[in-house]
Amino acid sequence: MGAAILPDLGTEILIPVCALVGIAFSLIQWVLVSKVKLTTEKHAPVDGKNGFSEVLIEEEEGLNDHNIVAKCAEIQNAISEACGNWFAYSNFVDLHVAGATSFLFTEYQYVGIFMVAFAVLIFLFLGSVEGFSTKSQSCTYDSTKLCKPALATAVFSTISFLLGAVTSVISGFLGMKIATYANARTTLEARKGVGKAFIVAFRSGAVMGFLLAANGLLVLYITINLFKLYYGDDWEGLFEAITGYGLGGSSMALFGRVGGGIYTKAADVGADLVGKVERNIPEDDPRNPAVIADNVGDNVGDIAGMGSDLFGSYAESSCAALVVASISSFGITHDFTAMCYPLLISSMGILVCLLTTLFATDFFEVKAVKEIEPALKKQLIISTVLMTVGIAIVSWIALPSSFTIFNFGIQKEVKNWQLFLCVGVGLWAGLIIGFVTEYYTSNAYSPVQDVADSCRTGAATNVIFGLALGYKSVIIPIFAIAISIFVSFSFAAMYGIAMAALGMLSTIATGLAIDAYGPISDNAGGIAEMAGMSHRIRERTDALDAAGNTTAAIGKGFAIGSAALVSLALFGAFVSRAAISTVDVLTPKVFIGLIVGAMLPYWFSAMTMKSVGSAALKMVEEVRRQFNTIPGLMEGTAKPDYATCVKISTDASIKEMIPPGALVMLTPLIVGIFFGVETLSGVLAGSLVSGVQIAISASNTGGAWDNAKKYIEAGASEHARTLGPKGSDPHKAAVIGDTVGDPLKDTSGPSLNILIKLMAVESLVFAPFFATHGGLLFKIL
Amino acid sequence: MGAAILPDLGTEILIPVCALVGIAFSLIQWVLVSKVKLTTEKHAPVDGKNGFSEVLIEEEEGLNDHNIVAKCAEIQNAISEACGNWFAYSNFVDLHVAGATSFLFTEYQYVGIFMVAFAVLIFLFLGSVEGFSTKSQSCTYDSTKLCKPALATAVFSTISFLLGAVTSVISGFLGMKIATYANARTTLEARKGVGKAFIVAFRSGAVMGFLLAANGLLVLYITINLFKLYYGDDWEGLFEAITGYGLGGSSMALFGRVGGGIYTKAADVGADLVGKVERNIPEDDPRNPAVIADNVGDNVGDIAGMGSDLFGSYAESSCAALVVASISSFGITHDFTAMCYPLLISSMGILVCLLTTLFATDFFEVKAVKEIEPALKKQLIISTVLMTVGIAIVSWIALPSSFTIFNFGIQKEVKNWQLFLCVGVGLWAGLIIGFVTEYYTSNAYSPVQDVADSCRTGAATNVIFGLALGYKSVIIPIFAIAISIFVSFSFAAMYGIAMAALGMLSTIATGLAIDAYGPISDNAGGIAEMAGMSHRIRERTDALDAAGNTTAAIGKGFAIGSAALVSLALFGAFVSRAAISTVDVLTPKVFIGLIVGAMLPYWFSAMTMKSVGSAALKMVEEVRRQFNTIPGLMEGTAKPDYATCVKISTDASIKEMIPPGALVMLTPLIVGIFFGVETLSGVLAGSLVSGVQIAISASNTGGAWDNAKKYIEAGASEHARTLGPKGSDPHKAAVIGDTVGDPLKDTSGPSLNILIKLMAVESLVFAPFFATHGGLLFKIL
Repeated sequence: MGAAILPDLGTEILIPVCALVGIAFSLIQWVLVSKVKLTTEKHAPVDGKNGFSEVLIEEEEGLNDHNIVAKCAEIQNAISEACGNWFAYSNFVDLHVAGATSFLFTEYQYVGIFMVAFAVLIFLFLGSVEGFSTKSQSCTYDSTKLCKPALATAVFSTISFLLGAVTSVISGFLGMKIATYANARTTLEARKGVGKAFIVAFRSGAVMGFLLAANGLLVLYITINLFKLYYGDDWEGLFEAITGYGLGGSSMALFGRVGGGIYTKAADVGADLVGKVERNIPEDDPRNPAVIADNVGDNVGDIAGMGSDLFGSYAESSCAALVVASISSFGITHDFTAMCYPLLISSMGILVCLLTTLFATDFFEVKAVKEIEPALKKQLIISTVLMTVGIAIVSWIALPSSFTIFNFGIQKEVKNWQLFLCVGVGLWAGLIIGFVTEYYTSNAYSPVQDVADSCRTGAATNVIFGLALGYKSVIIPIFAIAISIFVSFSFAAMYGIAMAALGMLSTIATGLAIDAYGPISDNAGGIAEMAGMSHRIRERTDALDAAGNTTAAIGKGFAIGSAALVSLALFGAFVSRAAISTVDVLTPKVFIGLIVGAMLPYWFSAMTMKSVGSAALKMVEEVRRQFNTIPGLMEGTAKPDYATCVKISTDASIKEMIPPGALVMLTPLIVGIFFGVETLSGVLAGSLVSGVQIAISASNTGGAWDNAKKYIEAGASEHARTLGPKGSDPHKAAVIGDTVGDPLKDTSGPSLNILIKLMAVESLVFAPFFATHGGLLFKIL
Repeated sequence: MGAAILPDLGTEILIPVCALVGIAFSLIQWVLVSKVKLTTEKHAPVDGKNGFSEVLIEEEEGLNDHNIVAKCAEIQNAISEACGNWFAYSNFVDLHVAGATSFLFTEYQYVGIFMVAFAVLIFLFLGSVEGFSTKSQSCTYDSTKLCKPALATAVFSTISFLLGAVTSVISGFLGMKIATYANARTTLEARKGVGKAFIVAFRSGAVMGFLLAANGLLVLYITINLFKLYYGDDWEGLFEAITGYGLGGSSMALFGRVGGGIYTKAADVGADLVGKVERNIPEDDPRNPAVIADNVGDNVGDIAGMGSDLFGSYAESSCAALVVASISSFGITHDFTAMCYPLLISSMGILVCLLTTLFATDFFEVKAVKEIEPALKKQLIISTVLMTVGIAIVSWIALPSSFTIFNFGIQKEVKNWQLFLCVGVGLWAGLIIGFVTEYYTSNAYSPVQDVADSCRTGAATNVIFGLALGYKSVIIPIFAIAISIFVSFSFAAMYGIAMAALGMLSTIATGLAIDAYGPISDNAGGIAEMAGMSHRIRERTDALDAAGNTTAAIGKGFAIGSAALVSLALFGAFVSRAAISTVDVLTPKVFIGLIVGAMLPYWFSAMTMKSVGSAALKMVEEVRRQFNTIPGLMEGTAKPDYATCVKISTDASIKEMIPPGALVMLTPLIVGIFFGVETLSGVLAGSLVSGVQIAISASNTGGAWDNAKKYIEAGASEHARTLGPKGSDPHKAAVIGDTVGDPLKDTSGPSLNILIKLMAVESLVFAPFFATHGGLLFKIL
């Protein structure tokens, strides 16, 4: 066996130091962004790099700079405030923002009830396993020792649940704060050049990425150390309690992804249907009453939603790895460094991403529009290559050369290089998924161009070709996931899967940075339009945004791929904890679970899509009402009532979230209690293998339609010009596809990540309860 | 144990007698239909019921009856001829029809190569299991006895494969023949009243239904008896060889469903896009060059396709039940009556359906338009209720009161009433699926009305709501299937599942009759339009057609539900035959199979949808070309070139079928040979649980869009009138939805039945080969 090279003390120091470095780096980025002033007193001092030595376009064109800046600040304020509001409603944090109405109170109740009720549920269910006894029990995996009582697991699971939830909320909140802080600044920097604007947007994304990665790691690390004070040598109990952290992170992702997804698309679809289609005014026109809600939605859905989703995956895969490791040789021999291998991988990830970020902001400079997308893609490649080396180092110094891993009842011997391969295969599968996603959603390649071409014969063929493209785009990602699963499963069973997931997420800081960059640029474009800035500024922000669309699709690919691996790891941990030795498809209990589980993503998608549809219809009515009743709105002499539209989106996002949320949260409970752990295993496997397909195809179909429309609008090639210009019949058909795709790519598709992960982690947390008291129906029959 | 009440001799007589009764009944229906004359010499003699005692509408309106009848005959001839052509191309049966061009020869080759190559493959793969040895082997399940050599299984499997294929082809061909024979007759009868037209259409459907059910039973029965001459007491080998019959039936369904689906929708979408949208001429207008192809398509897709699909299911579930029974106590004690229980259930089904048919044609009379749909629904209910009694009788007289069934290595005791419940639960699950399908696709209920309402805000919301409806519509059918599986699995393992599938298919004759009724009515309407008949005639055929749309959707629901059960039964039989004892999801080999299997329906759908899209685009170009180059076409003075359009559809249907066909046929071979039987088990389970969802949602989404459009067009309610009339913006949005739905509901959705069944039956047939020589990749690693 042999011990790890890195001493335990080294581990104790390394992890928090890396986390703090990440936080510090993120704050530095924030400071750099804040150097762009949103006041017009005096320009910031010239410093050669980020200074204002260049002539501004507005000045060239003789526009009044003061008014522009003031207008930008005003719009930013409106977006930021509304974002804060949404956050306050959904996350129980009262920001005392202006305009919070009595309706705020109603919304408070939903989220409040959820958090408290679920915490109570965790406590009661887990406490009841041993009848709320405070006596120590003999350990499950080593009956010669005494372990802490089930009641302790209940208490600590509840605490870690709340910690996970709060960390997710804070990270998401800060991400949204910086995004709304950066959007107007990006617009202003765009006056000076595309490179300057790119750096502001990218740095702001990095703030989000690093804060989330470092916070997640730090809180998890501190929690483990604090829990250790009570648990001592009972690592089995300790890491079982830690799984609550994953559940907390993931349940907040439900609000972020599902609620945020409904918010953003209700606003977007509603704004487009009346503004672009009926009134024929451009996107982001300030006369459109839903325009602020639309820009808020970008932040709510793509920043807070994506952030909480990836944070959830990160927390869950760490917890899954830890809980499996705790009953393996690391746990039994109390090898702290090896036990912390997942955290060390994440620590290394922060350092690697830090270095990678410098490539975009300091080592190279983006000078022209066409350099933006390659710069972002380079980020993915550089971080993956560097991280491969990083994983090798961590595997070498933190792991014994050989150790055993728990594999459904038997111990399996694993070499350290095998574990390196597990993490590495996940990392590289992520990159492959990213590139395939790009191929199917970027209009630089033939799939999207074919979809655009099908617009010649109308919207129907566009929809048919788009759906077919989405279906086709699942093939390679599924093979990549299958290979990762096979390699990591064969080498190190469920621990391998969890580590493959963590491998895919190890470059999360960079992934989130380029992902958050998208909505920031999108907002920047919106602000430019609303502030009435020059056409040339808008062109620059559009270029930033177009690159952002592709990276957003790549980010979604990552999120789904990692969700699939994480769910499988959690599923494996659940099976271990529920003490099932096989999940045999050829038993009726499992098979009915499998087929019903495969149905759940459809049920869930039906709900989320219908929610977007209904919310968008409400938005359409309100926008129409304002255009019809507010005199002078179309002429630009009167101001629309942005707040009511924001309220509609907020309201819809919370109210419509309840049915799909209930489906996700209640299914494991109902199945576990009435049908037992075997059927629940089937449900988890079924929803995993079915959900991942719909999620990938929905995201890519939507992304392809969006970019097919942009392809026609941009008219950059001979072929594209035969389809355009804006307003031509093929373009109208493309707009219909884009609108259909909105809920698919931003609501129902990504929400499925939450479905598959949350059901798995919930099953894991409640596994002891289901194993003890579950399966009532079969017990009665 | 005890023996069955029915003596073996009784069984030997009963089964062929029932089959012959079915064939005789079907011929009587044909004769009754043929009484409607397509010549104008003299009206048929007045016989009070089907006579011509009433005044014809044309005569009232002073139209020349002779011309109308002649025109109808001419159009019918064109459709019938083209149908024959398609059949000839795809099924290797040269009908010497006029207009068969040199291109016919090319098409011959595809199908010919497929049939021969596959027969050779079966022989080689199965023969190689024991190295083509002609020596008898000790039996797998009773090593004290000698069984026939693997080479015999190879030879007889090949023969039964060819028999299954030929039976499927003949049944489908006759069905299409009667349908094209009946369409013009239905039109002519519509002049006399809606009731008369209904009876002609329904009788013709019954011809198809009874011929198929009775032929399938008879050929299977004769084959078993002939094979018995060689196999003697080696029932294990006998019924293994019989599985080839299922494979033959199912592989022809690939041509019917997939090829037919592409044919019909290429024509339909192509005709609509130019005719309705660009040229603004009504549906089925004779000036549209694609109109004959469109009407042919209805027969090819919905009659031949559905027929071969259900025939495949029927053959496969019978084979799956027989192969499992052969190694159970029936087989070991050579209890012929009990062994033939599946065939006796089908025999009883023919008698029950015969009685049920009389309720529609003789006991009651349809007098008004609003009585059509209830009359068809009553058929379903009556047949289900009567069949429940029938199953009870068969279970009582044909089964010992208690017997044992083979269940993955162990024998399980089953009571005869338990088997009654297995068959019954399948039968009633079918009815529930039918009614749920009706609820989600008929415009009498709120789901479709909501979709129609969403057309107010355009095509995009229509598509979003339609997709959401389809997703939602899977919930109850999946629960119904899950309950059937649980009940039948728990009582009688895989034998129970196979019998549940056969229970769902026991009323196949009635199911097919009401299903085939749809396209016949649709064609009748088309002929009325083309022959320039009175508006009132068209109204009557439209009413017949509208009811047919709903029953077509119900038929699809049945087909999918039974396909799911059949596949599971085949999967179980495969696992038995491959000697796997568990299919554990928690092994890497199985899990990667599961996730890749769940991906296959997406890959397959991507191909079929793209195929329809490409074929439709070709059709659009041809129709446009004809409108642009043939002078006087729009004015009706020149005739379009129907033949070229028919050729395009035929061509596309065969050529585009190759990639999806190859995916289905090659996947089990590749997975079995390189990854082995465990991974193949995963693939089968994954594709089953994922495919059934997509199939149901695609069919229902398409059906709902179709009827939402019809709802707006009919304007039967206050709400519907606010959305209409034809040509309004909501109606245009509804037409887009309808066009998107066409390939979903008639090509990609139903084709998935074939995917899941064919992969399963192919795996079953090749199981001994895979078990012996498969898994090369893992053997090398």
